[in-house]
Amino acid sequence: MPDGMVQLELSAVKTLAHAALLKAGCNDTNAKAIADTVWQAERDGCASHGLFRIPGYVGSLKSGKVNGHALPKLQRTAPSVLWVDGDGGYTPLALSTMLDDFTALTKSQGVAVAAITNTFHFAALWPEVEALAKKGLCAIACTSYKPCLPPAGGKKPLYGTNPLAFAWPRPNGEPLAFDQASAFMARGDVMIHARDGKQLPDGAGIDKDGNPTNDPNEVLEGAQLPFGGYKGASIAMMIELMAGPLIGEQLSLEAAESDDEDGGPARGGEFILAMDPRKTAQRPISGGNAERLFQAIAEEEGARLPGEGRLQRRAKIAKEGVRIPRELLERIEV
Amino acid sequence: MPDGMVQLELSAVKTLAHAALLKAGCNDTNAKAIADTVWQAERDGCASHGLFRIPGYVGSLKSGKVNGHALPKLQRTAPSVLWVDGDGGYTPLALSTMLDDFTALTKSQGVAVAAITNTFHFAALWPEVEALAKKGLCAIACTSYKPCLPPAGGKKPLYGTNPLAFAWPRPNGEPLAFDQASAFMARGDVMIHARDGKQLPDGAGIDKDGNPTNDPNEVLEGAQLPFGGYKGASIAMMIELMAGPLIGEQLSLEAAESDDEDGGPARGGEFILAMDPRKTAQRPISGGNAERLFQAIAEEEGARLPGEGRLQRRAKIAKEGVRIPRELLERIEV
Repeated sequence: MPDGMVQLELSAVKTLAHAALLKAGCNDTNAKAIADTVWQAERDGCASHGLFRIPGYVGSLKSGKVNGHALPKLQRTAPSVLWVDGDGGYTPLALSTMLDDFTALTKSQGVAVAAITNTFHFAALWPEVEALAKKGLCAIACTSYKPCLPPAGGKKPLYGTNPLAFAWPRPNGEPLAFDQASAFMARGDVMIHARDGKQLPDGAGIDKDGNPTNDPNEVLEGAQLPFGGYKGASIAMMIELMAGPLIGEQLSLEAAESDDEDGGPARGGEFILAMDPRKTAQRPISGGNAERLFQAIAEEEGARLPGEGRLQRRAKIAKEGVRIPRELLERIEV
Repeated sequence: MPDGMVQLELSAVKTLAHAALLKAGCNDTNAKAIADTVWQAERDGCASHGLFRIPGYVGSLKSGKVNGHALPKLQRTAPSVLWVDGDGGYTPLALSTMLDDFTALTKSQGVAVAAITNTFHFAALWPEVEALAKKGLCAIACTSYKPCLPPAGGKKPLYGTNPLAFAWPRPNGEPLAFDQASAFMARGDVMIHARDGKQLPDGAGIDKDGNPTNDPNEVLEGAQLPFGGYKGASIAMMIELMAGPLIGEQLSLEAAESDDEDGGPARGGEFILAMDPRKTAQRPISGGNAERLFQAIAEEEGARLPGEGRLQRRAKIAKEGVRIPRELLERIEV
């Protein structure tokens, strides 16, 4: 094992997270929902959204910015729209509260939108789209953040890293799911590079004067860049609109204005869309030609399905447990 | 004017297209819908989807692959799903037939999907999302094609160029709209480069052995590449699933198998999603904070809104008319 790292059983992740959140003032319901989300990130080998985030979650509970006793409320604002008021808490409880209603709504209507508002988002998005795909639905989720990415042609950050997650149900086994930042690199990964003193790859960002740089600290002060040039910037803008104005929530630039910089996330919304292929395809399908596509990808040498790496890490970690920096463990256990 | 080009008034585009389509066996309704779509492309300075496509449209009518007398049928397969059977015709008539019903459905339900099936798609996507945004809706459209792009890590084409279009309503003036291929470059543009004997920029594609090349003819035999590496490939895959299996239509690889290579498009579907911000945002908004975002982009030097170039070309062409190659005009007028 590398120096300064400790080995944990996967179940210990949930216990540690839950205890730290209770101590910071969460009630049990909120703490459980967040701990489960942190556990899912560690289970899938995504350190940047796992226990690494606990000090941030704790910071915003202690500052009073986030409500640790949130009681999310659901409302049908239109026949196919489920509007969720997260009561100023972290997003995981809003998501677990609405999951069954939203699944039933999508199955009856064919398509539905969940507008998650008045929450603080600090997690990955694949758990929620994967959960919907496990119920047989095709799902899309996106959220904004604070300004990290400039618009096409610009230098000043305006869009969040703005991740997009997508999942597709498969008849046998795990759903296909991807979750990708509109940034060239996830902000969590830039932060991990900064923590570990590692340089960033070319194209990840610019410094505050707009010059390309590989220094993660300079990028955190300047701007990350979108993936794929102006087309990636278009995707980031679409997400900015859907996770903000479309659901009546803040833009990334508004989130930054209203945030108190306590180490946790700013207030923001999450846009979730789900569709039932049994309704949109007019007749029952069970995988159908989608499986043919996945088969063609599997047969091509070197080609891979999005999310394949995550499922491999999940299998490995289920056997071997997780490793986290001792210094992080000590901060969480304080 | 450059050698070999002729100047046309914009209105002549519609007349020319309509006449060529009638002569090729379309009835008036179908010919009008297609001619209007071709006209919209030329109006916006998009030569690759304008009159350049008429020989292809004509080819598939003459071969009998496409039904020039199509009568699209609408069906509600779920409360928020409008399923459209295009009756084996070109897509424009299916779209104009369903537009009013689909708009009303979206406004009552908050969100709706239109599954456009049994059609032949040969056009740009921004006209349909722009039309929906002009009615106050946020809209997304996508379609697949024949295999052009390899999956992440692969070399053999499997996904179409798979364009994604998005539009957002603005309280004053034209909607914001973008329409971008998941390919680094639109296939129509690669074809225009081949026609004009121009080299492609780096990153546009690979030859049939998987080597990078700038020769458009080699790329047309090999594979185009997605924009933004593996993240662009994820977007292409999402579109492949939504414009195919999700709506019960063919994959790009199936479209190629069933196509007769008559110069026109293969059979395929189009996925359209529309949402009413008045319902998803819980309270009436009229631009709201979205306009603040657009303002921030407008104020940054060098930054631009997606689709801005298209609106500028539209204004210029409205004054000056269009230029097309004389050789193309002669083929259309035959």
